[in-house]
Amino acid sequence: MTEEKWDVVIVGAGLSGLSAAQTLLKRNGKLKILILEGKERVGGRTVTLELPAAHGVDRWDMGGQWVGSSQTYVMELIKEFGLEVYPQYTTGQKVHHVGGPVAKARTSSTTIPALSPLVLLDLLQLVWKIDKLSATVSVENPMKTPDAHKLDSMTLHSFIEKHAWTEEMKEEMGVCSRVVFGMEPNQMSFLYFLMYAAAAGGVLFLLDSTPGSAQEFRVKGGTQQLSERLAQQIGWESVRLGQAVTAIWQDAGWAKVTTATQSYLCKEVIVSCPPHLAAKIHYQPALPSQRERLTQNMPVGHLIKFIITYQTAFWREKGFSGEIVARSSAECPLSVTFDGTSPSGSPALVGFISGVQAYEWSSRVMSERCDAVVISLVKYLGEEAAHYIHYEEKDWALEQYSGGCPVNVMAPGLLTYHHPSLRKPCGRIHWAGTETATQWCGYMDGAIQSAQRVALEVLARLCPSTLTQKEQEAVQAAQNHESGPCRPTPSKSRVHRALIITTLTVAAAVLLAKPQVCRYWIGQAWDVVMFVLCQ
Amino acid sequence: MTEEKWDVVIVGAGLSGLSAAQTLLKRNGKLKILILEGKERVGGRTVTLELPAAHGVDRWDMGGQWVGSSQTYVMELIKEFGLEVYPQYTTGQKVHHVGGPVAKARTSSTTIPALSPLVLLDLLQLVWKIDKLSATVSVENPMKTPDAHKLDSMTLHSFIEKHAWTEEMKEEMGVCSRVVFGMEPNQMSFLYFLMYAAAAGGVLFLLDSTPGSAQEFRVKGGTQQLSERLAQQIGWESVRLGQAVTAIWQDAGWAKVTTATQSYLCKEVIVSCPPHLAAKIHYQPALPSQRERLTQNMPVGHLIKFIITYQTAFWREKGFSGEIVARSSAECPLSVTFDGTSPSGSPALVGFISGVQAYEWSSRVMSERCDAVVISLVKYLGEEAAHYIHYEEKDWALEQYSGGCPVNVMAPGLLTYHHPSLRKPCGRIHWAGTETATQWCGYMDGAIQSAQRVALEVLARLCPSTLTQKEQEAVQAAQNHESGPCRPTPSKSRVHRALIITTLTVAAAVLLAKPQVCRYWIGQAWDVVMFVLCQ
Repeated sequence: MTEEKWDVVIVGAGLSGLSAAQTLLKRNGKLKILILEGKERVGGRTVTLELPAAHGVDRWDMGGQWVGSSQTYVMELIKEFGLEVYPQYTTGQKVHHVGGPVAKARTSSTTIPALSPLVLLDLLQLVWKIDKLSATVSVENPMKTPDAHKLDSMTLHSFIEKHAWTEEMKEEMGVCSRVVFGMEPNQMSFLYFLMYAAAAGGVLFLLDSTPGSAQEFRVKGGTQQLSERLAQQIGWESVRLGQAVTAIWQDAGWAKVTTATQSYLCKEVIVSCPPHLAAKIHYQPALPSQRERLTQNMPVGHLIKFIITYQTAFWREKGFSGEIVARSSAECPLSVTFDGTSPSGSPALVGFISGVQAYEWSSRVMSERCDAVVISLVKYLGEEAAHYIHYEEKDWALEQYSGGCPVNVMAPGLLTYHHPSLRKPCGRIHWAGTETATQWCGYMDGAIQSAQRVALEVLARLCPSTLTQKEQEAVQAAQNHESGPCRPTPSKSRVHRALIITTLTVAAAVLLAKPQVCRYWIGQAWDVVMFVLCQ
Repeated sequence: MTEEKWDVVIVGAGLSGLSAAQTLLKRNGKLKILILEGKERVGGRTVTLELPAAHGVDRWDMGGQWVGSSQTYVMELIKEFGLEVYPQYTTGQKVHHVGGPVAKARTSSTTIPALSPLVLLDLLQLVWKIDKLSATVSVENPMKTPDAHKLDSMTLHSFIEKHAWTEEMKEEMGVCSRVVFGMEPNQMSFLYFLMYAAAAGGVLFLLDSTPGSAQEFRVKGGTQQLSERLAQQIGWESVRLGQAVTAIWQDAGWAKVTTATQSYLCKEVIVSCPPHLAAKIHYQPALPSQRERLTQNMPVGHLIKFIITYQTAFWREKGFSGEIVARSSAECPLSVTFDGTSPSGSPALVGFISGVQAYEWSSRVMSERCDAVVISLVKYLGEEAAHYIHYEEKDWALEQYSGGCPVNVMAPGLLTYHHPSLRKPCGRIHWAGTETATQWCGYMDGAIQSAQRVALEVLARLCPSTLTQKEQEAVQAAQNHESGPCRPTPSKSRVHRALIITTLTVAAAVLLAKPQVCRYWIGQAWDVVMFVLCQ
């Protein structure tokens, strides 16, 4: 084996690894940077495919697809590459089917979920409690959160069991957990959930398509373009595909990064792959046990994403938005669908089989899943759903060098003990990836934020003169966990909150009496409440 | 690279891997078996060292050291090799220091912990609840446990918070979790805890030194002898040390097991290393995602074990047993100590720094930990503790190809979804190790039980004629999860239980009134109760 010499070797050519290379090169164009990727493509958890569609073929994202205006890092990159975004289609009736095995599907044309008034109140009080707690979380240093130990000692499930009033709300939260994390509420620390929500600006931002939320926009032509443009800008000759890193050794002089066929010497290494993959690499000397313990306990979600293309957007014509939220059941594999019509007008629905439903359905053959999805779509949107052009799916658990999607979470008891190891460099090794982000952790935005942070870290070692004094201090502070004071407690007074709750209680009571008349107005009120809660 | 050909390659030369080889060869002496071990020694989580002692040098176990008469597999192996056991010394006052920062240390000369009557009652009701639930757990298939989902959705911490009456009892359970698992109660599924207790025959068996319990006997000359004798019997030429397995590939014809320097072809592979190390191996084709998800979420405990040798067993002379149980505090690193005097009479104490205390103390230099341990021993046992001969410690988190001790547990939400992958073979790969045991899971006994199970599995593939019809059926059933019906509900009637609780309530009330007079009798009663509860 010959050993090539580089300044920086980056493990992983996803958005995070490639953005780190971009930032490094922007600061110092002379740096010799190599990016090693296990897959035969760039993009990590984003991949865009050409699928049969109404007008021949069109492109759809089989991985991360949404961005939001509050996601400043990814919006900046989209702008830099001259790409365009377009809003998620949300007009029309949304289907909501939660509430136990005998519940019927309900529809609603506002952003308010079609829930009974009692469950709606339950949702409000639960979101209020979660957002109140989330606002106390220091994303940079969750150990500083008041009651950190208590909150990290319970699962999200335990919190819901204790604080949700209705069984329907408990089921609802299961769907939310499945859709956002690809994971059940019993597999995740409640403090981690709070931190994740805090990094997004509040729990409703994770769930909504409203301005600033996670599902606000889609990217014309697909999100994998971002990684492809980055690779182009960096130079494809610096990106080696099909080169999974198996070992990283380091000594006083160098780090040695090894793949099945080659070794590379370098001064600094950036590991940008998800934690459970970073845990598979053999490190010598061994990493500190606190770091190993962290990556050994960050389960990754299980999502099967599907795109189903149609000749016409029949749901729009029938007054549906295409959004379906469904409870976990033996018959219906899907947790959620949205309108997935392309910007050029090729009609499609996009949906997810996730968490326990992915677990139950992943072992069957694709045609069975496809049939079950179509039966569910027919049930919720009408007979037209049976006449699709193409069904395409991607089980991210089966994708080598991913093993799951969308994100790794933390099991209980991890944050309070092992969080300091999340971003702390180990010798010449630096940690990137969306799981290490403090803004929109788990999203494309977080991947880029983490890349910019790690790039500064590496520059501070290799060429500190390229950093401002402030940046050098920030790097230092982040590594010493001094940059993470507790976020201020929410500014809204208790009176303010009480007023909202009371108003909604009265409104719900009226709704109980005159449901048809009031539904529209409650919908409007819901929008206002969400706007207020999310500020 | 040349590729040697073998019938079976075993990954790991701990008790489990070596026992598997022994069982295979006992059934079919012609099998070509190779054992690959990353460490430069056999024994896995057992290692015996020669340390400076009162009469020159003597031998102590720095890893697993206790066995019990109910641990039939390890007792059988001890007998087979003509080794001897001797009882753990328990005579005299036990020191118990739990109950918040201002509590004083208490002593007791019976097996009853030195707790206030109220806390004692709390302990009884909590143990009763846990044992009642534990008796409903199917160790072979925990998913069959009534309320499996609910029990697996909470941490042990959440259960304690809900069901313990007193703060002292909550702290007490923290110490128990630390001592048994090297882990905090918030890092573990409550259902997993119940299953672990069920595999040991009841929760008190995990904690006690009474007949049948986990700390009943020690092995003369140390437990590493078991692995050494096994290696000798199998033939040292079949055991290759310093050969960490990095990859296992399999196809229709062979499995290929690769280390840094060599590849080996074989028909079947047994992976006997702990789950977090099995997760580090690169598999091709990739393992089913359910299996990957399991090993990605089985955190390993953190124990630092110490042996401190003395000229005389001064504590015995002063009427102490040597047993100290201490709450987690900034001053005192130890969680528990026992008399560790060797069978030839070299006085010693053995102790553990574990869980959060290991986390807090592991980053300091050894002399600091030693000083703090000695200061604590002086505080609890007297000034003589300062005059030790030798302090030896082993931080198992730092041991390469261990990374922790004593056992990997499961985070919440794993058992209900991913438990079927724990023992299910993946093609030519079979899973052993104490974490896969159904009797004394986590102990040396479990390591051997798992080895015998896996050996039958491999024989069923390679030479089924060596198995009886019954054994072949058992192998088949275990893989289909048909061997694990729910254990019968406890036979003791509610009246029986109620009687015990009432008697103890009355006794505790009398104790409150006349503590000195009653303490002896309560101690006796405690022994009886434990005997009854453990049957």
